[in-house]
Amino acid sequence: MRKYAIGIDIGGTNTCIGLIDEFGDCVAETSFKTAPFAKADDFLVKVADETQAIINDNAIEILGVGVGAPNANYYSGLIEFAPNLPWDGIIKIREFLSQKLDRKVIITNDANAAAIGERIYGGAKGLNDFLMITLGTGVGSGFVVNGALAYGHDGFAGELGHTIIDPDGRKCACGRCGCLETYCSATGVVRTIKSFLSESNEESILRNIDLNKIEAKDLSLAAKQGDKLSIEIFDYTARLLGLSIANAVAISSPSHVFLFGGLSSAGELLLTPLKKWTEHYMLNIFKNKVKIELSQLPNNKAALLGAAALIFDDCK
Amino acid sequence: MRKYAIGIDIGGTNTCIGLIDEFGDCVAETSFKTAPFAKADDFLVKVADETQAIINDNAIEILGVGVGAPNANYYSGLIEFAPNLPWDGIIKIREFLSQKLDRKVIITNDANAAAIGERIYGGAKGLNDFLMITLGTGVGSGFVVNGALAYGHDGFAGELGHTIIDPDGRKCACGRCGCLETYCSATGVVRTIKSFLSESNEESILRNIDLNKIEAKDLSLAAKQGDKLSIEIFDYTARLLGLSIANAVAISSPSHVFLFGGLSSAGELLLTPLKKWTEHYMLNIFKNKVKIELSQLPNNKAALLGAAALIFDDCK
Repeated sequence: MRKYAIGIDIGGTNTCIGLIDEFGDCVAETSFKTAPFAKADDFLVKVADETQAIINDNAIEILGVGVGAPNANYYSGLIEFAPNLPWDGIIKIREFLSQKLDRKVIITNDANAAAIGERIYGGAKGLNDFLMITLGTGVGSGFVVNGALAYGHDGFAGELGHTIIDPDGRKCACGRCGCLETYCSATGVVRTIKSFLSESNEESILRNIDLNKIEAKDLSLAAKQGDKLSIEIFDYTARLLGLSIANAVAISSPSHVFLFGGLSSAGELLLTPLKKWTEHYMLNIFKNKVKIELSQLPNNKAALLGAAALIFDDCK
Repeated sequence: MRKYAIGIDIGGTNTCIGLIDEFGDCVAETSFKTAPFAKADDFLVKVADETQAIINDNAIEILGVGVGAPNANYYSGLIEFAPNLPWDGIIKIREFLSQKLDRKVIITNDANAAAIGERIYGGAKGLNDFLMITLGTGVGSGFVVNGALAYGHDGFAGELGHTIIDPDGRKCACGRCGCLETYCSATGVVRTIKSFLSESNEESILRNIDLNKIEAKDLSLAAKQGDKLSIEIFDYTARLLGLSIANAVAISSPSHVFLFGGLSSAGELLLTPLKKWTEHYMLNIFKNKVKIELSQLPNNKAALLGAAALIFDDCK
């Protein structure tokens, strides 16, 4: 008999709930806006009600409920002080949902869920040591080590985006300077675009775009047209990400690195210089050993699949 | 009945073999020079003979043989191209010893063995997520994640000493630039001493020492006497090590970081600035959570205990 799990993806804008089978098919799905709920408690009631409705409507038994959410802690079961969600403080989401739904509930942050999603449904099937990097509004990561996600002693491991690559570098939202995220997230790349445009007089398609509205995807579009400055910006971004990957490899020695999220949709524009720079900075014993690939999760369902995968991975 | 294992510590200068019990007592021990053996095969015969002699002399049954050696690979059982050993190429040490001694043999590098030693005999008992950093001629490390040493997909994980902290920094023996090891190993600190002495005219006890013979321990002696320049050098070293620890914490979220080896014998001269800088560079969610401590392994027996601990850890 086919097995099912519920995946819940909680984002600052939307919350999606899906009924996912063991092969990654999304059988049923619903979504609603996250922001309108003034209180976290009201939001939790809505999540539980919608989840129960999907279970009832499909008359299917499920193995459990997986939740991917910003700052969600696997160990404590809490969402703790998530800056991207509308509610302050601590949200006891696992306790609430497991009591209300009477099902096993596993929670973790988005990047960790993406790593497990890649392992169950994507390119990381059968891999025991790999690294998932999510290049979105921020830079997240999930380290799978010895066949299991590294949560660390407190559940917060995997913050590659907040490793410091230049202590005198760009100011980060975390309060420190020079975090990888300030260079290689979508917003980081926009900062690089503005900096390159202001520091040179080079012709560029990017100069035709309103600087207040420019986005990382404009960079891909320009680079695809052969825009030299845009290609230089990809090279610059790839150099810094490659340095971070080489350092992460020295620590955890993964067989694969998977890239997911906005910037990774640039494909070879990013991958080609990224592979070059990663090998450039790689310690000799790791050279030509680590495969850097794009995530094989479908972009529009990755978060749901990752959340449901938490349950299938746990049942293995 | 008390349990025993053999620990073998292979270094560039000496090789030590010890019969160690489950409480960390060294019941019998022998050692010999590593370098005189022209061929690795002759060396292996000597290791096997001396080990068998210890087992026979003590008429004790052992659980197995643990080996700590440079570039020793847990998975392959090989010592692979170790620059600090007198023989080139690949040494099939696990296969040879396990056949010759008819016992279980586990091998890994020195820093990983130290991490497991700390877990079995030292300050890391009962800890599932911690980091061991060995500050010797080089900088080594062992990451314990989810209760097990992270060997990575190829057995070479844990090279914190070869994470790059400044791509334009000091030339490293590995061929790249700016590795942590070039600043925070014993030889790295000597480079810092020479650089500080040449770049300032500040009075210092260190100026009384022949620069060709100066060692890291001279720094400790001078700093203990209140030598201002020496204290500045500790602060400089601690800042770079603290940055690396903060980055490693962001990735693996350990509860403890243990320091072992030459430079750590400076005690509070290193620990006090190191704690300050690590907290300075730490991501907010990890601040004031991670304990930085000196290894509790006895300095002169640590490598033997670490090697034997590989067996006791495996039998747990």
